[in-house]
Amino acid sequence: MTKKQKTFRPKARLARGLRDERGAQIAAERKMLETIGTVFERYGFELLNTPAFEYADALGKFLPDQDRPNEGVFSFQDDDEQWLSLRYDLTAPLARFVAENYDALPKPFRRYQWGSVWRNEKPGPGRYREFMQIDADTVGAANMASDAEMIAMMAECMEVLGIARGNYLIHVNDRKILDGVLETVGMSAGDSEFEKRRLVVLRAIDKLDRLGPDGVELLLGKGRRDESGDFTEGAGLSSEQIDAVMAFTRSGTVDRQKVCDRLAQSVGESRIGLQGIDELRRIDAYLTALGLNSDRVIFDPSVVRGLGYYTGPVWEVELTIETQGEDGRMTRFGSVGSGGRYDNLIKMFKGVEVPATGCSFGVSRLYAALEHLGQVRADEQKGPVVVLVMDSERLADYQVMVKELRDGGIRAEMYMGAGGMKAQLKYADKRRATLAVIEGADERGRGEVTLKDLKLGAQKATEISDNVEWRSGDAAQTSVPRAKLIDGVKQILARYDGA
Amino acid sequence: MTKKQKTFRPKARLARGLRDERGAQIAAERKMLETIGTVFERYGFELLNTPAFEYADALGKFLPDQDRPNEGVFSFQDDDEQWLSLRYDLTAPLARFVAENYDALPKPFRRYQWGSVWRNEKPGPGRYREFMQIDADTVGAANMASDAEMIAMMAECMEVLGIARGNYLIHVNDRKILDGVLETVGMSAGDSEFEKRRLVVLRAIDKLDRLGPDGVELLLGKGRRDESGDFTEGAGLSSEQIDAVMAFTRSGTVDRQKVCDRLAQSVGESRIGLQGIDELRRIDAYLTALGLNSDRVIFDPSVVRGLGYYTGPVWEVELTIETQGEDGRMTRFGSVGSGGRYDNLIKMFKGVEVPATGCSFGVSRLYAALEHLGQVRADEQKGPVVVLVMDSERLADYQVMVKELRDGGIRAEMYMGAGGMKAQLKYADKRRATLAVIEGADERGRGEVTLKDLKLGAQKATEISDNVEWRSGDAAQTSVPRAKLIDGVKQILARYDGA
Repeated sequence: MTKKQKTFRPKARLARGLRDERGAQIAAERKMLETIGTVFERYGFELLNTPAFEYADALGKFLPDQDRPNEGVFSFQDDDEQWLSLRYDLTAPLARFVAENYDALPKPFRRYQWGSVWRNEKPGPGRYREFMQIDADTVGAANMASDAEMIAMMAECMEVLGIARGNYLIHVNDRKILDGVLETVGMSAGDSEFEKRRLVVLRAIDKLDRLGPDGVELLLGKGRRDESGDFTEGAGLSSEQIDAVMAFTRSGTVDRQKVCDRLAQSVGESRIGLQGIDELRRIDAYLTALGLNSDRVIFDPSVVRGLGYYTGPVWEVELTIETQGEDGRMTRFGSVGSGGRYDNLIKMFKGVEVPATGCSFGVSRLYAALEHLGQVRADEQKGPVVVLVMDSERLADYQVMVKELRDGGIRAEMYMGAGGMKAQLKYADKRRATLAVIEGADERGRGEVTLKDLKLGAQKATEISDNVEWRSGDAAQTSVPRAKLIDGVKQILARYDGA
Repeated sequence: MTKKQKTFRPKARLARGLRDERGAQIAAERKMLETIGTVFERYGFELLNTPAFEYADALGKFLPDQDRPNEGVFSFQDDDEQWLSLRYDLTAPLARFVAENYDALPKPFRRYQWGSVWRNEKPGPGRYREFMQIDADTVGAANMASDAEMIAMMAECMEVLGIARGNYLIHVNDRKILDGVLETVGMSAGDSEFEKRRLVVLRAIDKLDRLGPDGVELLLGKGRRDESGDFTEGAGLSSEQIDAVMAFTRSGTVDRQKVCDRLAQSVGESRIGLQGIDELRRIDAYLTALGLNSDRVIFDPSVVRGLGYYTGPVWEVELTIETQGEDGRMTRFGSVGSGGRYDNLIKMFKGVEVPATGCSFGVSRLYAALEHLGQVRADEQKGPVVVLVMDSERLADYQVMVKELRDGGIRAEMYMGAGGMKAQLKYADKRRATLAVIEGADERGRGEVTLKDLKLGAQKATEISDNVEWRSGDAAQTSVPRAKLIDGVKQILARYDGA
């Protein structure tokens, strides 16, 4: 059998769930990252870069009972058959880095990092398979002061980025308290089923926002069938257990100490539960000392975070401003960042517990928030000055003109295509050029150049068909002696300074 | 049969051929990239980001007669069985981007981009499988002025980065001339074997630096066996053909016009060869007009570049300063960047020819050059001010102190670990802290804080065993009223300003 011969012309297309970004957006996002980085630096965090991919097992994405890495990550095999995975967050590579360089590092180790992460998940609107995160973590710090510091630092980032107090709210909870609640209703860490069911419970509570209490109760119990008919297996709790969990999620209120008092009732004598409450009380004390009151940070037992590895305090930074949802209704903008304590992650490598806490902003999400608030604008950069090519035999002369402009600190370029006057003007327009420099035979004869203000001339430009008409007595254009090129250009550019 | 049960503790290790980078180096590299970016911007190039991976066929890495992508790239299959590959350079994704967005883009399209690329190759010393490039390209420009501009821009980058004129040299050649030479000795593009042999010839000449003329002659002929015994198949040229090619590579000299004259003799009547010489003559004229003489740019027929896709001018930026090679002998630092014209690459998608030219700096290589020249230093950042924890019940007070320092613009942190005085001093030392703030019970009783200049005290610090001894009458430490904390810290920091 012979294969059918294909004519081979690949289609130029982005891979599924990915995107390109252009100048203005990149610059604005980078500025935002730098602002956050400056805050992180002031808090004593040090920059780290790790590679894009790691051994799958070093990322915790290789289960010993399977012969390939988890779904959810992009993985490939090296020459030597070892599995490699693209990082899906910045925390797992940090754990690898710390474990690998443990003895040489200052302890605690405070690092920040930003970069792309990749998720092999179903893409959707605004949901890409490559996206950027910026994280800060303190590794080797067991005390709650380091968690409180993370929370305070995230609040400071919000304000430095121009998100006013009152427009954001940080919701804090402690995983240990939920463990305590589960213990009081007969589920405890000794139970072999506990870990698995606990994660189902966490994920159920994590959906409170989206599904409401009724939906979550189904997920805590037998399970839930969604509108599409898909069935999600539940945690299998009894109705008494469900009531206890739901009561726990409703324990929130504005007064942090009052939340702790209420929670104390939910955990009874549970050692782990009481420890969780003690953690929150300490965090409250540190935050209060730093002046972070409940207008910025509340204790909210409905926030649990879906990830398995958190062991203590967890939090989410919510933008409280309203925005129109896909269904047209106004909803809160929602989460732009989060964090929590993960005392067991590095243990995977080291065998011993290395306490750690960290925080992470979703860069696109935060950028969208700032854009929504008018705090950033992906201003289309003003285009370069375009020197038109009036005579293709004189490219060298035009290039020298461009060089003079650049040496004078002016962003400039010669038109590099093969088009005529119309194409060149269209090009200058697409480049958002402020002005064009023209030196045809006429100008050269007079020892002059014509400077065309393209913004002033924008209305007329589309109507123009004739070279001569275009250059005749238009207010948008002036002639200056060739020797005064730089001054003339600067004068016109000055009309739009700061515009 | 049951699988043997493994105890599962992954080893924390970087994947093969990859590396981590720490703060100072990252910051210095980023500054270099920004400097280059500023030059590119002034030349009118616009920033673009493309994703880390693409469909393998869209990168030109999927051969129709095979069922998986080329070796040399990292590839994996998506859910829908399509092959994805990590980008191995920034040119292939640009070609995809331009083809995909052709109608909407200004033409010519001038973009620059920097980011990681990945090569599935054997790693070696200083040779990583993930590395960074910064590229600028003009797509849609057929004239040699755009190539000359690239060359001029690379020269300007070198000088803006602090590499003095005379320490670098740009070697330019034109692929068409070699084609002309081959044509004169009976090999021409009509020949079905031509493309394959031509690439072998290019790769052979590309090794002149490393193998010398004798080695290259073997590779042009029957082939060459290296020291390890590996045999590399040759291009199979006759000795007359080899002589012609070798004569071509020796046509270089300082005078650019003289090189063109010599080359004109090598290509005879070959149309393609004469076209190549015309291209070089134009580039010479543009460069001369821009003031770039043969102290900065020479024509050098021994430079051909190994890549298949170049169609006209090619060039390499060489650092001419000497450095000690691995064998202890002094050698030239070598290539830090390169570029060339590739008029057929976008044709792969569009069917029509879209002329393009571009340049690329290897970021690590260029950084190493700047480091070698003393133009950059990965200065270890001065550490933060460390507030020591003298009483673990008073963390909130110490945090408030840290907050005051930060609010005063001082990089500061509280010690977050659980260690005693010795561990805390060791920590401050590893962090390269300039000073430590100490407020024990004594100080608090007096309403004071002790400021310890860690640089002054560095010599003594290792000898200290006793808390009291350490704080007694040391010139390196002073006490200030608690209310004067900021002023006191600033005074000590001022001792090392600019250090």
